Amino acid sequence: MITHSTSLRVQYCDTDQMGFVHHSNYIKYYELARMELLRSICIPYKDIEDAGFIMPVIDIKIHYFKPAHFDDELIIKTQLPELKGPKVLFLYHVFNQEGELISEGETTLAFASGESKKACHPPAFFMDAMSMAGTH
Amino acid sequence: MITHSTSLRVQYCDTDQMGFVHHSNYIKYYELARMELLRSICIPYKDIEDAGFIMPVIDIKIHYFKPAHFDDELIIKTQLPELKGPKVLFLYHVFNQEGELISEGETTLAFASGESKKACHPPAFFMDAMSMAGTH
Amino acid sequence: MITHSTSLRVQYCDTDQMGFVHHSNYIKYYELARMELLRSICIPYKDIEDAGFIMPVIDIKIHYFKPAHFDDELIIKTQLPELKGPKVLFLYHVFNQEGELISEGETTLAFASGESKKACHPPAFFMDAMSMAGTH
Amino acid sequence: MITHSTSLRVQYCDTDQMGFVHHSNYIKYYELARMELLRSICIPYKDIEDAGFIMPVIDIKIHYFKPAHFDDELIIKTQLPELKGPKVLFLYHVFNQEGELISEGETTLAFASGESKKACHPPAFFMDAMSMAGTH
Repeated sequence: MITHSTSLRVQYCDTDQMGFVHHSNYIKYYELARMELLRSICIPYKDIEDAGFIMPVIDIKIHYFKPAHFDDELIIKTQLPELKGPKVLFLYHVFNQEGELISEGETTLAFASGESKKACHPPAFFMDAMSMAGTH
Repeated sequence: MITHSTSLRVQYCDTDQMGFVHHSNYIKYYELARMELLRSICIPYKDIEDAGFIMPVIDIKIHYFKPAHFDDELIIKTQLPELKGPKVLFLYHVFNQEGELISEGETTLAFASGESKKACHPPAFFMDAMSMAGTH
Repeated sequence: MITHSTSLRVQYCDTDQMGFVHHSNYIKYYELARMELLRSICIPYKDIEDAGFIMPVIDIKIHYFKPAHFDDELIIKTQLPELKGPKVLFLYHVFNQEGELISEGETTLAFASGESKKACHPPAFFMDAMSMAGTH
Repeated sequence: MITHSTSLRVQYCDTDQMGFVHHSNYIKYYELARMELLRSICIPYKDIEDAGFIMPVIDIKIHYFKPAHFDDELIIKTQLPELKGPKVLFLYHVFNQEGELISEGETTLAFASGESKKACHPPAFFMDAMSMAGTH
């Protein structure tokens, strides 16, 4: 299990007229957290695309426990469990500055060829980075 | 079971560098579809807020089967089952112009007071509109 | 001068906590209006990219006279003056359902090669479609 | 003249199928930069709204010189000149990690009452913070 923690500040454009963060923005927060976890294990997502692969999201689940507000400083704790098969699962827990859990969720990503867009297995450098990170 | 069908065209700003619609946009497509279903049973969401209520999304699930692309004309078939308790479930099936199912998902919404932001039961006018629509 | 009129309904996700449409969304409204104008003169933007060209925006100006609100039905009147050189200027006037002018603006686009991303002249089929449309 | 520098990393969801940052996102980058400048002179925008004011954007201009790409680390240099009348002008220069100027622009904001939404003069605490910051 690889873990990473990312913080972000809620921007004004993320709010809606309820005065909350619009629920669509959590997908972007999860994406940011996922990108930072990948960077932390030395496989920045940009390198994955540069190597000819893409990782489309094929499944997402989000539970919203409490709203987030403009200017909140959120902490996202992200987990990347060991791979079982070709899909990659990320788990997210989002906390506000009071330490309250405000959202949890998960995304499943698949590997595909950047050229043909067809599903494929994770490249060796991804598996290697996962193994290296998992043993630390 | 109340049903409604909504169409939309994919805008350029919804694409990402994979050449697909970025997965976050489906939340907006689902929102549009939900709003149009509510309008079709004579309770436009604006009226719900004008009456002092809000309906935050508390849970979302999305499966992505095939990507959508710029300029695609999508059809969203939305279902609103009978209420069981205070939460409101919507189901979505998104089809492309070839008739392929490209995404399915669901959102759960709760009623809350627009002023106190605290959870509350659906207002009588919402239940009445649901009953009226369900018998047609 | 080629003109076109497009209508759209303001979505919930476009609002911010002021209770207005967040000002960033007008860029998307302008984009939608521009795409529909191009479609109306038989050069859907998708065809332009399929022919190997892209049209990045290189300049934008927006004046906001009055706010737009959730569920408003906006009308965008778009103008495409005759080309003077390789850049393409679009002018926009946005009206709300009361007929009030709420925003006006302009965008300048350039043609570039989709492959090299380098600036280039408008392709002949674009010039031809402009001429055809301009004489009607 | 008050100045501030903010950095941000381009997120994946900000890209479009040209492979560039979609031009609408610069409005969000400018907003972020403006918020951080205000925070740096001890008037976080949240405090302005908490004090009963809002600052809608009434005018925006953006020039795009070069595209930004996914994962770029952008620097935004923001300037807030002395006020002349009730409107507040911010100027922005965006640089990429190679130090190239990729965008410049400006936004004009007005003060309004959060309750009535009617235009008003800047509150005294805003003018005081401006004076304090300007003399340093």
